[in-house]
Amino acid sequence: MNFNDKMKFYAEYTQKKLGEYNRIDNDTIRQRTLIEAMNYSLEAGGKRIRPVLVYAFCEACGGDYKKVTAPACAIEMIHTFSLIHDDLPAMDNDDFRRGKPSCHKRFGEAEAILAGDALSILPFEIIANDNELSAGEKVKIISVLANASGKSGMVGGQMIDIENERLSDVDEENLRNMYKGKTGALIMASCVMGCIGAGADDFHIKKAEEYAYKLGLAFQIVDDILDVTSSSDILGKPVGSDEQENKTTFVTLYGVEKAKKIASEITNQALDILESFNDNEFLKKLTEMLLIRSF
Amino acid sequence: MNFNDKMKFYAEYTQKKLGEYNRIDNDTIRQRTLIEAMNYSLEAGGKRIRPVLVYAFCEACGGDYKKVTAPACAIEMIHTFSLIHDDLPAMDNDDFRRGKPSCHKRFGEAEAILAGDALSILPFEIIANDNELSAGEKVKIISVLANASGKSGMVGGQMIDIENERLSDVDEENLRNMYKGKTGALIMASCVMGCIGAGADDFHIKKAEEYAYKLGLAFQIVDDILDVTSSSDILGKPVGSDEQENKTTFVTLYGVEKAKKIASEITNQALDILESFNDNEFLKKLTEMLLIRSF
Repeated sequence: MNFNDKMKFYAEYTQKKLGEYNRIDNDTIRQRTLIEAMNYSLEAGGKRIRPVLVYAFCEACGGDYKKVTAPACAIEMIHTFSLIHDDLPAMDNDDFRRGKPSCHKRFGEAEAILAGDALSILPFEIIANDNELSAGEKVKIISVLANASGKSGMVGGQMIDIENERLSDVDEENLRNMYKGKTGALIMASCVMGCIGAGADDFHIKKAEEYAYKLGLAFQIVDDILDVTSSSDILGKPVGSDEQENKTTFVTLYGVEKAKKIASEITNQALDILESFNDNEFLKKLTEMLLIRSF
Repeated sequence: MNFNDKMKFYAEYTQKKLGEYNRIDNDTIRQRTLIEAMNYSLEAGGKRIRPVLVYAFCEACGGDYKKVTAPACAIEMIHTFSLIHDDLPAMDNDDFRRGKPSCHKRFGEAEAILAGDALSILPFEIIANDNELSAGEKVKIISVLANASGKSGMVGGQMIDIENERLSDVDEENLRNMYKGKTGALIMASCVMGCIGAGADDFHIKKAEEYAYKLGLAFQIVDDILDVTSSSDILGKPVGSDEQENKTTFVTLYGVEKAKKIASEITNQALDILESFNDNEFLKKLTEMLLIRSF
């Protein structure tokens, strides 16, 4: 399969499995509204980058992608829960997400809080109940996933983001910390869970973790750049919103040109790390697709 | 130890361990505000009924309560996360909780959403990283906890509660379903996790589950009764709030006397089930304390 077909295949496979994990059946008929709200946001996913990283690292370590279906879907649920809560009026107050009304606009605010809550818990249920992974693998994966999602990871990064908005002076270290939590942690968990599912050794798990943080940081800097260089059509959200909101980004710190240089350096470091994996062609193309976007 | 001393001991032990699981250290110094918001609500706990049930069922099945410290603290975190989100303006909009400003009044709404989110994830992290339980026990416990907390359990019950408020006619079956999710599920998980930690057989796990749903339902009916018969001082919240909010309860369905009769029957059934456990004295006293309250 060529790169684009494989991306498409992984995305469709994930979509199908997410639907199966969150189906309305006789046991859950009374929770119909809740499940509909969860699925509404789960279905709005795009390329499913995080699940793709889970599958791809599993395969790069010699495993079968099917074995990590539960962790792949779990990380997408965590990502979706964070988007639902991020869009709430008390948080970023976004009425739209990928061109569709955000969850609270479509279902109501209380419903969106609960849909996010349920999507923060279901990941651990589907991993614990999985038929492919051993108990030892499940425990390792749950530990990585929870650590990356919670106070020390994604949720912690969101809190730093909120606190930074109130600071007059955010430096690079602070920004890197925030990015590491807010987006880096889930990307790290994706890569590492894929390795664990393939039974990889500590060396490869460590390499996957290093790669992931490079990828996450570069991805975020590219986002900062696209916010000022892209058009609304391509970006799917208003351009220049960071500046309007007085956000500190790599572009406000260093300007577009230096930010591009930093992103490019980190991208090369990420690609170098992939040399530690035998079957790395797909991961290299994925890295280039994510980091060498329209600028 | 007599009953009251043991209750006090369990509550203090839980408080201490919760603090250890959610400590601010060098790794989490950047998440100080988040952890403070989490601890603010964690510290506001009362009798720690759910952790006590975890310890007590572990001991009733011949285990050591220390072995289930992680599940006991985990269930209290889930309970606390639900209270923080429940109090939000978009949900019940409560400014106070146990006489203290609620989390969002003290820390802000975005902060409270994130503190709840982090407390929905930390339970799975502390169980996965526990040193007492085996991998197999952890997986079983995480499965029970996630199932009880999420869409099919507590969060699902909260959604039914919201939907019921919009219905003109809520019948007993609907009310039982809501109570079963909203409060019964976590009580069930507490009792069952205690049994799993003690290595109990399926018979005793099944009995613990049956007991828990009786206890949860009776507890909720007693709450309904106290809402009309108690004084604000004893209850710690305004009396008659259910009627004011047009909520359907066992009292609005059947009146105080019949509701008392139903609660008493279910209490007796719960006490009967405890006969299946050898060391059941503490659990019997706990049941009586919870269900034979000031009316």
